[in-house]
Amino acid sequence: MINKLVDKIKKTNAPIVVGLDPMLSYVPQHIQKAAYEQFGETPEGAAEAIWQYNKAIVDAVYDLIPAVKPQIAMYEQFGVEGIKAFQKTVDYCHSKDLVVIGDVKRGDIGSTSEAYAVGHLGKVQIGNTGYAGFDEDFATVNPYLGTDGIKPFVDVCREEKKGIFILVKTSNPSSGEFQDREIDGRPLYELVGEKVAEWGSTCMGDSYSYVGAVVGATYPKQGEVLRKLMPKSFILVPGYGAQGGQGKDLVHFFDQDGLGAIVNSSRGIITAYRQVKYKEQGITEENFADASRLAVQDMIADIAGALQSAR
Amino acid sequence: MINKLVDKIKKTNAPIVVGLDPMLSYVPQHIQKAAYEQFGETPEGAAEAIWQYNKAIVDAVYDLIPAVKPQIAMYEQFGVEGIKAFQKTVDYCHSKDLVVIGDVKRGDIGSTSEAYAVGHLGKVQIGNTGYAGFDEDFATVNPYLGTDGIKPFVDVCREEKKGIFILVKTSNPSSGEFQDREIDGRPLYELVGEKVAEWGSTCMGDSYSYVGAVVGATYPKQGEVLRKLMPKSFILVPGYGAQGGQGKDLVHFFDQDGLGAIVNSSRGIITAYRQVKYKEQGITEENFADASRLAVQDMIADIAGALQSAR
Repeated sequence: MINKLVDKIKKTNAPIVVGLDPMLSYVPQHIQKAAYEQFGETPEGAAEAIWQYNKAIVDAVYDLIPAVKPQIAMYEQFGVEGIKAFQKTVDYCHSKDLVVIGDVKRGDIGSTSEAYAVGHLGKVQIGNTGYAGFDEDFATVNPYLGTDGIKPFVDVCREEKKGIFILVKTSNPSSGEFQDREIDGRPLYELVGEKVAEWGSTCMGDSYSYVGAVVGATYPKQGEVLRKLMPKSFILVPGYGAQGGQGKDLVHFFDQDGLGAIVNSSRGIITAYRQVKYKEQGITEENFADASRLAVQDMIADIAGALQSAR
Repeated sequence: MINKLVDKIKKTNAPIVVGLDPMLSYVPQHIQKAAYEQFGETPEGAAEAIWQYNKAIVDAVYDLIPAVKPQIAMYEQFGVEGIKAFQKTVDYCHSKDLVVIGDVKRGDIGSTSEAYAVGHLGKVQIGNTGYAGFDEDFATVNPYLGTDGIKPFVDVCREEKKGIFILVKTSNPSSGEFQDREIDGRPLYELVGEKVAEWGSTCMGDSYSYVGAVVGATYPKQGEVLRKLMPKSFILVPGYGAQGGQGKDLVHFFDQDGLGAIVNSSRGIITAYRQVKYKEQGITEENFADASRLAVQDMIADIAGALQSAR
């Protein structure tokens, strides 16, 4: 799947991923209204609203991008009905040939971590048949529990040719509380980065490992160090746009050939219809998905420009 | 909810929690057969099997214990159908007046962490109504992202009078890879423990905080240190039984009055029917739940004995 991701990035010339993180408050009124008319102001209605919202955005941008990253928390908050909408979203994105990165940040130990890996990336055995659960292509994973938590994911990735992105240096302001603490003169995130490289060395795709890393756009200097520490790990970069990261901050997350990283934007794309910039181009709440397309095009141009001027 | 947990521990004299972590392979054949006859060898059938298995165990032990801890990974592996079985299990345990600790190990940042907190412990607003998602009483949370990841949970806990247990020192062999690394001469888990105490100081129950900690039974010395570092934090202790922890290892996780900790056993209780010890007492696969009851009684006696001889 890392090979497919790289291929699709080359084809689209877009090292970006659209974060499908639908808060109910983001969903345009006409979509909410239609969903509530059908299912009431209930979790079922809310789940229908976010699903229709996702679908319209995916339809508007799928040909421009290699991948999407649904954030499962935004679905899980609606309970079982939300999880159904997550599943529908994953399946629909696959039908559009998009690579799906499940932003699930799971992490546990032994057979429990294996159950997460199986549920999100693999197949669970029931009688004589293997059934895929959520069936994403990649999942994000938390490293705090060490190798015991990661190995079951790596095993499933090897079997299914899928991948994971392990949290190394997260984009949030307080990520340094533990991640930046110095151990033998080096920050914890570097030790985690070295482990990512080590875990990843056991399952290589053509040019990158099945095991990648999450490093926030808001920490460009740390990104530069980590890029070198994990030469074969693809870096998933959150924090672009709404969280403050810009194209020029991202240059050092990439390799010389413009590969090696994929940059996520969620709110910047899915709520683009609220930005003055796009309203001035004739966007209204009704044609919100057109704004998402414009925002994707602008993001691609921003990153391409930054990569070009860095060369 | 921490007050209810403490009350129930006092009433039952049982500082223990039963881990409802149903692997399909644990479920006795007659239950699997009945479920498959109704729903086929499908995720729906598997979900029915684990639900019936849980229900029988809960019916057999609920009067002896204060709390259960379903591990959501074991349900999530079956996709949407598994999640429905998780929900059913939580609801059923509530109907038996058990405190439910959702072992979900979630952790993200900002609005995403808030969505997890809302989905598991709070209510999501849809139109004019707040809907509970999974509605556990406590959730386990991963600290790697720092305060940004924890604060949204604490806010929801304060509002709903619920609680969290934050991973501090996990029970697995490789937990030391990052958690034991020394920072200014002290292991990372101690720094995390100090933060747990700090976060918890803002939301106190009668004698303990809404914010507790997870510390593995397999690390008794570390438990002793952490007990002192976090005097107001209840400690959830996994790793008893199948993972190697014994009653005598647990003494220092408790306060002088025998409170302050709750010990989890999963396999040791739910697969007790496979142990020679219980087979010799007339247990067969058919009456598996009776073995769970015997195992709970033995665990209570083991811990009570250890606490008594330590005094």
